[in-house]
Amino acid sequence: MPNSKYMAKNLTTRREDYSKWYNELVIQADLAENSGVRGCMVIKPYGFAIWERMQTELDRMFKETGHQNAYFPLFIPKSYFSKEASHVDGFAKECAVVTHYRLKNDEDGSIVVDPDAKLEEELIVRPTSETIIWDTYRKWVQSYRDLPLLINQWANVVRWEMRTRLFLRTAEFLWQEGHTAHATKEEAISEAEQMMNIYAEFVENYMAVPVVKGLKTESERFAGALETYCIEALMQDGKALQAGTSHFLGQNFAKAFDVKFATKEGKQEYVWATSWGVSTRLMGALIMTHSDDNGLVLPPNLAPNQVVIVPIYRDDAQFEATSAVAVELQRQLRAKGIRVLFDNRDTHKPGWKFNEYELKGVPLRIAIGPKDVEKGTVELARRDTLTKEFLPQEKVVDVVEKLLAEIQENLFTKAASYRASHTTKVDTYEAFKEVLDTKGGFVLAHWDGTAATEERIKNETKATIRCIPLDGEREQGTCIVTGKPSSQRVLFAKAY
Amino acid sequence: MPNSKYMAKNLTTRREDYSKWYNELVIQADLAENSGVRGCMVIKPYGFAIWERMQTELDRMFKETGHQNAYFPLFIPKSYFSKEASHVDGFAKECAVVTHYRLKNDEDGSIVVDPDAKLEEELIVRPTSETIIWDTYRKWVQSYRDLPLLINQWANVVRWEMRTRLFLRTAEFLWQEGHTAHATKEEAISEAEQMMNIYAEFVENYMAVPVVKGLKTESERFAGALETYCIEALMQDGKALQAGTSHFLGQNFAKAFDVKFATKEGKQEYVWATSWGVSTRLMGALIMTHSDDNGLVLPPNLAPNQVVIVPIYRDDAQFEATSAVAVELQRQLRAKGIRVLFDNRDTHKPGWKFNEYELKGVPLRIAIGPKDVEKGTVELARRDTLTKEFLPQEKVVDVVEKLLAEIQENLFTKAASYRASHTTKVDTYEAFKEVLDTKGGFVLAHWDGTAATEERIKNETKATIRCIPLDGEREQGTCIVTGKPSSQRVLFAKAY
Repeated sequence: MPNSKYMAKNLTTRREDYSKWYNELVIQADLAENSGVRGCMVIKPYGFAIWERMQTELDRMFKETGHQNAYFPLFIPKSYFSKEASHVDGFAKECAVVTHYRLKNDEDGSIVVDPDAKLEEELIVRPTSETIIWDTYRKWVQSYRDLPLLINQWANVVRWEMRTRLFLRTAEFLWQEGHTAHATKEEAISEAEQMMNIYAEFVENYMAVPVVKGLKTESERFAGALETYCIEALMQDGKALQAGTSHFLGQNFAKAFDVKFATKEGKQEYVWATSWGVSTRLMGALIMTHSDDNGLVLPPNLAPNQVVIVPIYRDDAQFEATSAVAVELQRQLRAKGIRVLFDNRDTHKPGWKFNEYELKGVPLRIAIGPKDVEKGTVELARRDTLTKEFLPQEKVVDVVEKLLAEIQENLFTKAASYRASHTTKVDTYEAFKEVLDTKGGFVLAHWDGTAATEERIKNETKATIRCIPLDGEREQGTCIVTGKPSSQRVLFAKAY
Repeated sequence: MPNSKYMAKNLTTRREDYSKWYNELVIQADLAENSGVRGCMVIKPYGFAIWERMQTELDRMFKETGHQNAYFPLFIPKSYFSKEASHVDGFAKECAVVTHYRLKNDEDGSIVVDPDAKLEEELIVRPTSETIIWDTYRKWVQSYRDLPLLINQWANVVRWEMRTRLFLRTAEFLWQEGHTAHATKEEAISEAEQMMNIYAEFVENYMAVPVVKGLKTESERFAGALETYCIEALMQDGKALQAGTSHFLGQNFAKAFDVKFATKEGKQEYVWATSWGVSTRLMGALIMTHSDDNGLVLPPNLAPNQVVIVPIYRDDAQFEATSAVAVELQRQLRAKGIRVLFDNRDTHKPGWKFNEYELKGVPLRIAIGPKDVEKGTVELARRDTLTKEFLPQEKVVDVVEKLLAEIQENLFTKAASYRASHTTKVDTYEAFKEVLDTKGGFVLAHWDGTAATEERIKNETKATIRCIPLDGEREQGTCIVTGKPSSQRVLFAKAY
């Protein structure tokens, strides 16, 4: 039975205005907010707790595949960007530039930049770290014995975006960036593929977001990459979101920064490279995939609190009786490794708390009132379906364990089914445009493989090629625009 | 029996040149190195793994005491610093200033700062985050129900130091900064004290470094604090190192950023504040407290690998036999939660590996050769005492468990005993100067409580008041410089 009594009152619905719904949800669910610094967000404790759960799982997966963490400088000398020709065009543009290293008191008492403290060479706040890292790898790699280098960094990066949105596009964001060095091309390619697969596994199994694995077209590739692997997800408004990328960089950075190694046979060769990253953008994907008009919906695998227990009472005696049940249930659930919050604050009423945890997407809510104490029951409410049931206290642990798994699966299934119904094969440019204008979503169409056609489609429809799917079937066809032959459909969508 | 056979060959001894020894050790043990960016370090994987262990334990301690993590912007508008009068003098000086947000291609093809992309207000790369955080707290705090706010951030910060040293003083460093808001003065003071105690517990129990808890004098206080609590450690060269600080900020930042709350009685009051932090500087303290002329010595509680197993073999058959024993021991040790590396690389010889792990401070090393396979023994070497013994394989787990605890305790005891023998009570200025010139260390002396005397001592001897010890006995005396009365000895030292 839907639990409409406690619906959030102030949230715009998705149907009314999806974009407004998203912005309000991020604020109301206490995930993040804009700061006093243009384009930079504050990640609030609840939002950060979800990001920390993402970090924990990803970090474990990276380490299980032999990667180590390290830390490289925030600043990159301007000249480093010029060393890799295609990289400079992609990244040395909209970025934060440090030009001075001192402030001083002005005559009128205000503080001003000290003109005497101008840097000889400007420093760029890292938009990505390939250049500073490959400048370092030159010192670390001499021999095949030093390879592979499998290194990851958790860091903040800055790209001076003009139009920003919380989590989706911000001037500063948090991410991890892996940077690996290998003796052979094959090993580097297989690393890039491995990391794409790890990202897909994480996004599907923890975030409950289904993804399409694929390759970027040349024009959508990372600046400096020979091949960009990606995972693409579909949001509830029919727009795509790139959830992670993994790049095979060839020997471009090794050549730019002169990183060579002696092979077993004593020859000098350039090192092969990959880089790969996911960012706080994943928070945007998580929010937009599962949430509803009542607020956030979190998959249990990433929920900071998987269960919240709310006591309902009118006097001290009732508080003590309901709390005793709550504390015991919390103990039992925690013993099973379940993350449980017992909210015994007396500063807020139960109705307020119900609303709060619905808005914050806590997967399961247990309410315990005086009648429950009498009858030995609790009320259990599911966030994903908004249904509730009464059950005996002794069954709580088993039911909660089962339901958490069920909710995780249900969210994935729901998202996968939405995606299935919003993935359309089209064979003409007219049908292509109609699908984009009406239901949106992924569109699978034949393309002649040229940047010119890709560009024309983008200009005319705002849709881009999200990827050339890796598991796409080979199928002869003709380009929807030029009629030229094509051997595989590619995945188009409007995107975040 | 000392294991001199495998002594590091290239390390300057502490006696020869302590400072050089430290610099070489940090590089040779693969902890960190200088980068191409002036004053910014690269923290290498092994160094970072130790820092990660520190982070894990501290983060757990913060969360156990009710703190939550969040993330605030890297950049702070220049004007924010001017809002708290004493803070601006302390922090708005040597810092990285962002003045532009775009680069462009020059006519000659090089990239230059785009003069059209000048920021209206310069942004400072955070040297510490009180200002941006209190600007945010204004929005978060309305009522007593919103208090306390107990928030921590793990972040990078930048202070433009002119003379830098790896871990001890770098332009960019990593740290955590806690920022809490409270309804009452008493609660804020007790929070500041609690965090000093947590730092002391961490540094003593995990880093095995004994500390003195105390209060900073007014001139050594954090810019903007009413009281700075600190923990002070003593390095092997007789110099002190401030290992952590916790500040009671009064209502200074609440007033500067207009952060008020409605009390239960409906009155509007300013919020009370604390901030507290420890940084990658702790790595410097860890290295300098325990390490010796053979390299790093790590306390087992923070060692990324507590035990390393090295097989010794001449042919495939011996490799297989020794490996089989190693793998089984590794399994047994891991089952006890012990961090064990089995180094089965065939690219390096056992002697090289012994040297490597000695240099890297791994607490215990197990070597297994063909004779050990025959006899059912292993060779076990302790890093802290450089002694070794043979023991039966079936005793390894018990002995290792016991030894790890023993080594942890031994390192603390050794450091405490060094400190005890390098803490001197003096009653005259002559004796004071002589102690500083000869054995160094902590000097306990009476001081008249004035900034003028403190300044004079600093100028004449380079010694500063590290702290007014919190557990120091009350004792009437006279200032060693002015002869004025004093009721407690304070702790002087030359410091890092």
